Amino acid sequence: MLPFRSLALLLLISLFAFTVTFASADAYHSLLRMLPGGRTLSRPAGVGGAANDYLCGGWRLSVETNNAGPWYSIPSKCIGYVKKYFDGDQYYSDSKVVAADSLNFAATVTIEGDGKDIWIFDIDETLLSNLPYYALHGYGSETYNETSFNEWVELGEAPALPASLKLYGKLLELGFQIVLLTGRDENQRNVTVENLLSVGYSSWEQLILRQSDDHKKKAVVYKSERRAALEAEGFRIHGNSGDQWSDLLGWSTSTRSFKLPDPMYYIG
Amino acid sequence: MLPFRSLALLLLISLFAFTVTFASADAYHSLLRMLPGGRTLSRPAGVGGAANDYLCGGWRLSVETNNAGPWYSIPSKCIGYVKKYFDGDQYYSDSKVVAADSLNFAATVTIEGDGKDIWIFDIDETLLSNLPYYALHGYGSETYNETSFNEWVELGEAPALPASLKLYGKLLELGFQIVLLTGRDENQRNVTVENLLSVGYSSWEQLILRQSDDHKKKAVVYKSERRAALEAEGFRIHGNSGDQWSDLLGWSTSTRSFKLPDPMYYIG
Repeated sequence: MLPFRSLALLLLISLFAFTVTFASADAYHSLLRMLPGGRTLSRPAGVGGAANDYLCGGWRLSVETNNAGPWYSIPSKCIGYVKKYFDGDQYYSDSKVVAADSLNFAATVTIEGDGKDIWIFDIDETLLSNLPYYALHGYGSETYNETSFNEWVELGEAPALPASLKLYGKLLELGFQIVLLTGRDENQRNVTVENLLSVGYSSWEQLILRQSDDHKKKAVVYKSERRAALEAEGFRIHGNSGDQWSDLLGWSTSTRSFKLPDPMYYIG
Repeated sequence: MLPFRSLALLLLISLFAFTVTFASADAYHSLLRMLPGGRTLSRPAGVGGAANDYLCGGWRLSVETNNAGPWYSIPSKCIGYVKKYFDGDQYYSDSKVVAADSLNFAATVTIEGDGKDIWIFDIDETLLSNLPYYALHGYGSETYNETSFNEWVELGEAPALPASLKLYGKLLELGFQIVLLTGRDENQRNVTVENLLSVGYSSWEQLILRQSDDHKKKAVVYKSERRAALEAEGFRIHGNSGDQWSDLLGWSTSTRSFKLPDPMYYIG
């Protein structure tokens, strides 16, 4: 009977709280303002969590569509929103939709059987997640610290992004060759391979990392050059998955590109 | 006293229902939090409004980033979500962010003063909003009816999208020439001009509509051809604003493109 009594007590307390709230005219007006139909255009900005959620939702759409162009930090009023995005369900849900979109397209591709039909994956925030690191560093809101980030990479403990891991397996089943094209440095090859294998990725065709003469290049140039080289080798680049627009744009682009969510940082 | 007693009773019943729902949702979330990483992937789909919001949020991101590729209808479980998107604050807020992104870029462009620096705008769901029409037709969830839609267009009563109207004025002030490039037909020129003028748009350099031999072309081809012709005339296309990726992709693309939100329909 204890759970029932607790529930009844909770009910009684809630009823009291609700009635008191209901009786307050201000609270009643606040409630009214929360009702659908009220448009923010006439609503004062920054009146609390809800207004911030709209603003930060618009900001997230702006960076995910690349409307924002280059951006350097999360708006300070959106840091809590970004934390909630990753701590809650939305990030995982969004990643699943991207994987589903990718697979829908992949299923329409004719695999020639000559081993030249490829799908390119970026690594960080695409196959592997650095969320354990970024969660300790303000979800990207702190200035990027290369030394500290590389220490994290060297641990080789980045988890797989679950939706990408499933997609990866299904693409292999469909007969795609997988090429991993990452901004990580060649000297991080061993730890990267170990990390990928330990979380379930295997059987890639190539793992391409930045060589010493790539460091001065913008990511979009380095990645385009490598895709062009793959095409020159006769590979047909059907799909390309990455969390940065610089993974996807440039030249020698794939037939279809898939932008994974990343409201933490921008690489040009 | 009768109304008061009924209200009290209703309150009690509603509160009980709310508390029970709240108690079980809370328990469910506690359980989720105990899972490694608290990841939704293990959460059954469709467990209620919140889950639908996540799913539909992911779907909206998918169409706005073009991850979805061609799509033909709003998922039936997301029709309510799309209605809420337009009826509430998010659409207006998102449009404002797109306009702000556009203006941020526009301010960096050097205007040569030879009248060749242009910004291209699409019309429907970009400068003008057909929301009054679509609100009566399931927010795009009903099969597109060309006759019925054209009747609406012929009324010439589409309102301006407020954020676009402000952006338009500021681009003119900065010295851009404005080119309107629309999928509307040449025989809709008069009503389109009247509608644009009546809601506050003016002083465009050109209004380009579909000619009879354009009807067989995909939108992305028709629009790319027209942009190429503009470039051939010596125009420099700095910005391009549209609610469809077919407004923005193809060839002779602008330096920067700005995708306005449109989770109602897709034009390829």
